[in-house]
Amino acid sequence: MSDHSQYQSDTIIALATPSGIGAIGVIRLSGPDAISLVNEVFGGKDLSIQHTHTIHFGTIKDGKQVLDEVLVSIFIGPKSYTRENVVEISTHGSAFIIESIIKLLIRKGARPANPGEFTLRAFLNGQLDLSQAEAVADLIASNSQASHQVAMQQMRGGFSGELQHLRDQLIHFAAMIELELDFGEEDVEFANREQLKGLIYQIQRILHRLIQSFEQGNVMKNGVPVVIAGKPNVGKSTLLNALLNEERAIVSEIAGTTRDTVEDEMIIGGLRFRFIDTAGIRDTVDIIEAKGVERTHEKIKQAKLIIYLFDPEQNVKEIETQVKYLNELDIPFLVVVNKKDLVNSEFEGELSVISDQLSVISDQLSDNRQQTTDNRAQTTGNILLISAKNKTGIEDLKSEILRKVNLHSINTDDVLVSNIRHLEALQKTEESLNRVLVNIDNPITSDFLASDIKQALYYLGEITGQVTTDDLLETIFSKFCIGK
Amino acid sequence: MSDHSQYQSDTIIALATPSGIGAIGVIRLSGPDAISLVNEVFGGKDLSIQHTHTIHFGTIKDGKQVLDEVLVSIFIGPKSYTRENVVEISTHGSAFIIESIIKLLIRKGARPANPGEFTLRAFLNGQLDLSQAEAVADLIASNSQASHQVAMQQMRGGFSGELQHLRDQLIHFAAMIELELDFGEEDVEFANREQLKGLIYQIQRILHRLIQSFEQGNVMKNGVPVVIAGKPNVGKSTLLNALLNEERAIVSEIAGTTRDTVEDEMIIGGLRFRFIDTAGIRDTVDIIEAKGVERTHEKIKQAKLIIYLFDPEQNVKEIETQVKYLNELDIPFLVVVNKKDLVNSEFEGELSVISDQLSVISDQLSDNRQQTTDNRAQTTGNILLISAKNKTGIEDLKSEILRKVNLHSINTDDVLVSNIRHLEALQKTEESLNRVLVNIDNPITSDFLASDIKQALYYLGEITGQVTTDDLLETIFSKFCIGK
Repeated sequence: MSDHSQYQSDTIIALATPSGIGAIGVIRLSGPDAISLVNEVFGGKDLSIQHTHTIHFGTIKDGKQVLDEVLVSIFIGPKSYTRENVVEISTHGSAFIIESIIKLLIRKGARPANPGEFTLRAFLNGQLDLSQAEAVADLIASNSQASHQVAMQQMRGGFSGELQHLRDQLIHFAAMIELELDFGEEDVEFANREQLKGLIYQIQRILHRLIQSFEQGNVMKNGVPVVIAGKPNVGKSTLLNALLNEERAIVSEIAGTTRDTVEDEMIIGGLRFRFIDTAGIRDTVDIIEAKGVERTHEKIKQAKLIIYLFDPEQNVKEIETQVKYLNELDIPFLVVVNKKDLVNSEFEGELSVISDQLSVISDQLSDNRQQTTDNRAQTTGNILLISAKNKTGIEDLKSEILRKVNLHSINTDDVLVSNIRHLEALQKTEESLNRVLVNIDNPITSDFLASDIKQALYYLGEITGQVTTDDLLETIFSKFCIGK
Repeated sequence: MSDHSQYQSDTIIALATPSGIGAIGVIRLSGPDAISLVNEVFGGKDLSIQHTHTIHFGTIKDGKQVLDEVLVSIFIGPKSYTRENVVEISTHGSAFIIESIIKLLIRKGARPANPGEFTLRAFLNGQLDLSQAEAVADLIASNSQASHQVAMQQMRGGFSGELQHLRDQLIHFAAMIELELDFGEEDVEFANREQLKGLIYQIQRILHRLIQSFEQGNVMKNGVPVVIAGKPNVGKSTLLNALLNEERAIVSEIAGTTRDTVEDEMIIGGLRFRFIDTAGIRDTVDIIEAKGVERTHEKIKQAKLIIYLFDPEQNVKEIETQVKYLNELDIPFLVVVNKKDLVNSEFEGELSVISDQLSVISDQLSDNRQQTTDNRAQTTGNILLISAKNKTGIEDLKSEILRKVNLHSINTDDVLVSNIRHLEALQKTEESLNRVLVNIDNPITSDFLASDIKQALYYLGEITGQVTTDDLLETIFSKFCIGK
């Protein structure tokens, strides 16, 4: 790890709130001169003699010109986010005022902060470990209950604690084995091999669980990729709108917090679903037709769920053909018949026959066979009947979607891995420990044993940042927003 | 003034920072229960026993679920913006987190704030007078040094102080004259008529100055409407871009504070210039051609400056015709010849003759006749030569634009009126006082005298809000953003 003292000697500044017009904007400074720099341009109490965690009303002045009446919050290091002196200036939310104040303080000696530099300093100064720091960015980007939960858990150190515990135990054995090597010729054994094996099995179980958790963690963080397939005009965009409109209504409930709703995303049960735009698939071509097209095929394969939308005016036999193809893909799918008002009893009978053959989905749907009411989706066996236009069956469809994704509850207390960097480090740790197990009983390979344990320690340390490089930090923090 | 006690009994909540992704978001509450409501969901110190102007780290919890780690700022009324208890919650800047926390606190009993309701409460509770409250919205909307200055001066009460002083003196006379009316039959005179006259003259002078200041105040607040006229392809949009690009470069200097640059606005010398899109004028038609078109004509009349852009390939005599028309309009104008590299000596000679005839602009431009250098605008007498494409002469053009607008310095300490509501109230005050002067020497009209003075007091009071109505407040505060 290189010398990061450069970060400690200067004072950085950035707007911490989103740009745009709002009631207030918050400008943040961190560094040894944060308080004295602001004090120079502050009309009010002497900020240099105030207690930490106090707020002071006054003006920011450029010479004689009053730039704004502000509230200044003082945080004296190490009792601050970065463990340095931190000042937050709460201004009126005018871009002109914010720019003027930032420019003024840069003239006085502050430096514009790089993306994530406040959090980088928090990490470098030991306030957060690296996985916690990464979670800060995830938290800011979180846009659903699920992604929020994964990030919050990681930021609060659930992950770090678990890893730290494993690492401490391994360090103990590494030290013992190093000691053995020092006594090389004397054939002593400080590290009990059976205990070590036991520990490694235990660690492997935890690693395995963490690695396995990535699928859920990743889906919770990044959302579920979904393909809606079906022939043109079968009602795909009507269905998407029926699902989306409800979300929009919820969002607009709270004025002033309008969320930018992406056209092809929606939240169901706290989980974000991303609809993959497989141009060929969603808009024009049937799955079967698209089968030959490699790129579309690849896109379908990225999906964690396929919703196959069917029009009662299509030949009912087509469903059978589609379902065979869907089965081959080995991706969960839902067969949904839209325009249920067009479904006649003959069609329904045929559907029923087909659906009975759909062993793949029969279990999940079996408890759904019930009397039809107008506000519920009709399920003819394993096939859902809805009307996207009349918004009937949408709630049942949502339940089915969630069931198909087959997640454990998102309200889990389990530690989940959601970061691909962490996943890779965990996998490498696992590989190193596998080698340890291979070599453990062979006294000739004590050298390898020690080096493999150290490798495992190295990879574990990468996650929480005990081991790091400038490149890694650069990669991680450049993804942050400025001001964090 | 109606009973506003409804405002005092409940606790309001809103996001105070712009929506969008940023490092932090600030949620603000104001009202009697602000502290206790937040305390209910806060994991950390007991907020109900903390000092005012202190900051506390902790979590916001919905039941067992941690929504965020936050900083909570406590302001105990009357030492707050609204003079009520105020809490600001500084969260991670995720729309999901912000929504969740606001929803939670609404469930606990807070009410979503209306636009400007925090500032309305500040006004109702006597923290600000009405003109100061209005200035808060102006300040947030301020987007140039000039608009910022006008709003800041008004918010800091420069305007209010001046009016209050006039009002106090008038109140004294009103009381004296009322007293005379009480003694109706006895013909006593408590209010010295000569002193009253003197006072009214003095007030009229101040009113006159304030009313006169509106032109400058309005331009500083709302910007200068400019028309760029000229034949198609004369380089109007190239010129606009040459002027705009420079501003953009300045703005992008400070990362993270990107200002939304409106295509047709720019800042010159701290003043905002708004380019009027007179479809007919700017893009296609010459002024003369457009003369007959009423609507375009009206738009031109709104301009405070016309830049007439000329192409050396046009017939030079056209300039003469244009200038005659521009003179009739009685709006300051600049004649600018673009593509100066195409100007030959013959053309220049003709320009020179024309420009000598331009008595209207000769004075302003006379000191601008100098040796041509490549980076300056060539001025052939009263006509500016530039190249929008090569960006030569742009700085000189800017100087000329500022000179033409003929503002006093925007760094004035004078109190300026920039609000049309204030202007109208000042004009009505002036009218009432004019009637006072008419009636002052006539003892029969003492009744009118008293009522006219009261009218004047009423109008003055409207500005600062001593006199107000719900409708007026509604109109004013509905223009605020939510959270202020």
